[in-house]
Amino acid sequence: MTSTSGSNRHSPVETAAVVAHGRVDVRDAVERVRAVAERAGVELVDEPERAQLAVSVGGDGTILRTLARLLGTGIPAIGINFGRVGFLASIAPERLEDDLARVFRGEYRTIEQPTLEAQLDGGTFVAVNDVVATSSTLGRMIELGWSIAGEDLGVVSCDGMICSTPSGSTAYNLSNGGPVLGRGLDAMAITFIAPHSLDARPLVVPRGMTVTVRNATADVSAGVLVDGHRVADMLPGGEISVFLADERSLLATLPETTFFGRYRETFTSHP
Amino acid sequence: MTSTSGSNRHSPVETAAVVAHGRVDVRDAVERVRAVAERAGVELVDEPERAQLAVSVGGDGTILRTLARLLGTGIPAIGINFGRVGFLASIAPERLEDDLARVFRGEYRTIEQPTLEAQLDGGTFVAVNDVVATSSTLGRMIELGWSIAGEDLGVVSCDGMICSTPSGSTAYNLSNGGPVLGRGLDAMAITFIAPHSLDARPLVVPRGMTVTVRNATADVSAGVLVDGHRVADMLPGGEISVFLADERSLLATLPETTFFGRYRETFTSHP
Amino acid sequence: MTSTSGSNRHSPVETAAVVAHGRVDVRDAVERVRAVAERAGVELVDEPERAQLAVSVGGDGTILRTLARLLGTGIPAIGINFGRVGFLASIAPERLEDDLARVFRGEYRTIEQPTLEAQLDGGTFVAVNDVVATSSTLGRMIELGWSIAGEDLGVVSCDGMICSTPSGSTAYNLSNGGPVLGRGLDAMAITFIAPHSLDARPLVVPRGMTVTVRNATADVSAGVLVDGHRVADMLPGGEISVFLADERSLLATLPETTFFGRYRETFTSHP
Amino acid sequence: MTSTSGSNRHSPVETAAVVAHGRVDVRDAVERVRAVAERAGVELVDEPERAQLAVSVGGDGTILRTLARLLGTGIPAIGINFGRVGFLASIAPERLEDDLARVFRGEYRTIEQPTLEAQLDGGTFVAVNDVVATSSTLGRMIELGWSIAGEDLGVVSCDGMICSTPSGSTAYNLSNGGPVLGRGLDAMAITFIAPHSLDARPLVVPRGMTVTVRNATADVSAGVLVDGHRVADMLPGGEISVFLADERSLLATLPETTFFGRYRETFTSHP
Repeated sequence: MTSTSGSNRHSPVETAAVVAHGRVDVRDAVERVRAVAERAGVELVDEPERAQLAVSVGGDGTILRTLARLLGTGIPAIGINFGRVGFLASIAPERLEDDLARVFRGEYRTIEQPTLEAQLDGGTFVAVNDVVATSSTLGRMIELGWSIAGEDLGVVSCDGMICSTPSGSTAYNLSNGGPVLGRGLDAMAITFIAPHSLDARPLVVPRGMTVTVRNATADVSAGVLVDGHRVADMLPGGEISVFLADERSLLATLPETTFFGRYRETFTSHP
Repeated sequence: MTSTSGSNRHSPVETAAVVAHGRVDVRDAVERVRAVAERAGVELVDEPERAQLAVSVGGDGTILRTLARLLGTGIPAIGINFGRVGFLASIAPERLEDDLARVFRGEYRTIEQPTLEAQLDGGTFVAVNDVVATSSTLGRMIELGWSIAGEDLGVVSCDGMICSTPSGSTAYNLSNGGPVLGRGLDAMAITFIAPHSLDARPLVVPRGMTVTVRNATADVSAGVLVDGHRVADMLPGGEISVFLADERSLLATLPETTFFGRYRETFTSHP
Repeated sequence: MTSTSGSNRHSPVETAAVVAHGRVDVRDAVERVRAVAERAGVELVDEPERAQLAVSVGGDGTILRTLARLLGTGIPAIGINFGRVGFLASIAPERLEDDLARVFRGEYRTIEQPTLEAQLDGGTFVAVNDVVATSSTLGRMIELGWSIAGEDLGVVSCDGMICSTPSGSTAYNLSNGGPVLGRGLDAMAITFIAPHSLDARPLVVPRGMTVTVRNATADVSAGVLVDGHRVADMLPGGEISVFLADERSLLATLPETTFFGRYRETFTSHP
Repeated sequence: MTSTSGSNRHSPVETAAVVAHGRVDVRDAVERVRAVAERAGVELVDEPERAQLAVSVGGDGTILRTLARLLGTGIPAIGINFGRVGFLASIAPERLEDDLARVFRGEYRTIEQPTLEAQLDGGTFVAVNDVVATSSTLGRMIELGWSIAGEDLGVVSCDGMICSTPSGSTAYNLSNGGPVLGRGLDAMAITFIAPHSLDARPLVVPRGMTVTVRNATADVSAGVLVDGHRVADMLPGGEISVFLADERSLLATLPETTFFGRYRETFTSHP
């Protein structure tokens, strides 16, 4: 089940790892994390895979990479937000010392969220937020043929297509008019980017349905992005399959951080 | 589980009921249904609750009412489309004789779909498609306070709000920019009508989450519509709760009718 | 020409009128206006038509009515915002004394803006913001046939249609997905409300083009709203014509109030 | 004035030029044009600049390039549509012989339409349809600072921004949610591509207003596309200005082809 763990208390953290490979310079913040860890008696290890908890310092991109790296390990990651948006990161920079000390004492929740698996040319990729197929040539539309659960849905002229998890629904999916998928929903949103067909609308499908996307353009290849990183190209005629994966990402947040609270803070004008 | 029944074959139908109370005059069509039934040896009964299968003759409104009436009985309804849209009705008027004969022989599928329960002032309503709260005064916006799963999400100035099942997602929800919810998804879409706040976006929540909507307008009451019919008014300060209900609607379709096929026919320009 | 008057200085105001017939109780504010007028030696008259300047106290609805009433007189109106939005009103309540004193000294600008004329059954209406044709029955879509400059554009199933001036473009038009028309644009936006046809898109037409809307619904009449007030009903078969009128509204604002500044304050998240 | 020439009749064409450099193989079509010209006694010249009329054979891209090339010459271009969309081209392939013969006899209209001028790093570009600034790195948003008529409008996180003429409004602008600008409107539409800010809305501004766009991203350059062709890059800190240009494009169409007719054929489901 996609779910929020019942408890807001965990055992005190004994080992943690700091992950900080974003674009922003966060060396000061990493030092502050080290100081909090020292005071709390938490051992910092280099490999997040050997820690009880990963502390991601950076923007949403950093925490996405950390969550992806830890898939299948059962180790959660918590984010300190030094990025622009920070929908995933629950600790604000100015509260780093207080909030991280609480987390190290065990005051955090973990949230299991669906991920996506993308299959392309024999390769397999797992996305925490989204899989995007998009024209690789500036100013050139592509034609994407698509099907769901084996049923052909025709061809759409567009700049690209987004398959998004609930976690990713508030990111690129939302910028392109896709719906917000509430936490706990075990579903994938499919949203076209700049569709030329005026009737292409965002679609939400349940676990178990595979969307297959074919590059039906004669002469433009499509880039395939997993959580914002280009991992492959889909040549004319190439095909990618995307579906909800077995693995779930494991995000840690402060106990008081809720999805809708976050949503309200981020997206509504007059909370 | 929300699901499509595994089999495309049922026992031959022995008793059926015709339901035809739409706005369009469908007396001729009803006669054609009677003739098919007679040839097939199907007994027509008056009460759909006493039939094996209800045959709805009209538009989507007619079949919605039939599905709602039959909730909990285990009796499916199939639609012959004499309306403008007919997303739910799978039999075209010009194929009435052929297709209905097939159905009477047992060639149909049944699709279980989530419904919504709305609670207001002690009253309870069940919707097959959608529950809408909307300004009852032409030209006056209302203020709707809303919360999900007990969390306050603030107040939105708008014309109204739509809570929609997957079945209803292609109806009024879609006209207001909401997403299409694929069959099999056990979820509810929440979409505002003409929100003044530019950041109000469609939201999809899973079973188990209740959305509560409060009329926060000082001086305008809001009409509450269930499947398009005004069932109550929400006075200033009044509140309605909507959630996925236990009961499921039971739509019968031709074996070859699929959700995405229907979607493609109805909404995509170049199938 | 639609334009902003070149000068930010006018002669000192000698006579003004207060207009305050909004829903909110603004008696205190009216008293504050009187006090400022007295200190400034401005005579307050009852009829805005006999004043040099009208001072509107209330929300956007109040200033709209004042602007409409003064069409053709050459008398501008300035707004003190006691409403929720206040895109038209340039004086904030807490700055009433200071700003109004400045205005009375002649420190204001006047902005000429296009208005719309609507013709229906021999009657003529002038709108400062918008003309809306909308279903008069909750939960019932209507069918609107429309043409522009005599060319038939087909029939759209929807809740209604909005014809908007640049001034009105940031109001109901925007809530329904219509574009913002910058000041100085001599054009009308046409936007459908909840169109069932997925390909109905907002359209902007220049002065000189008349849009004609016909209620093609068999059994539902449509309400016609002018600046938010229901002025007439369009029976099945009835028709309304809307075009940019000769008259222009004359809004007064503080010299430092600009359209895009207002736009930024009101609609962008991170000004 | 932006306008449609009053007359549907011109003098018979004596010299024409064929322009056909699209991606599609149109050699057969060019032969058919030659045959029609020969029968009509029309001399085909190589340089469109030396002809009375240019005949564009291909998709909308081909006719755009032809219109751009002929700016300022007073020579109109007519399109035979071998592309996918063909909003600009008024002659269908199957009617080439009949319709082109009529055109050669003088039966055509010419439509003057506004163009855009873009200034960047001392270079000047003229666009018939649109000027687009867009992230040059797949999967990376950019930050665009923008101002209109000298007024700062803040920074928008997005994939890019489109400035569009009325002619271009039905192209990429429409795919990104921008409004349709009716023929005759002397205005520019400004629409963001995948804005992260939920409140960024399409805007229409009149002639005389310059929009300035600055690449406020620290580390991603933006491609600048003119009518779909990348003409330059906007480095971090770089700036581009776009405004309605003095020159107008001169599109020839069949007398019976109207903007709204075209619009209806292309975009409405049930014409």
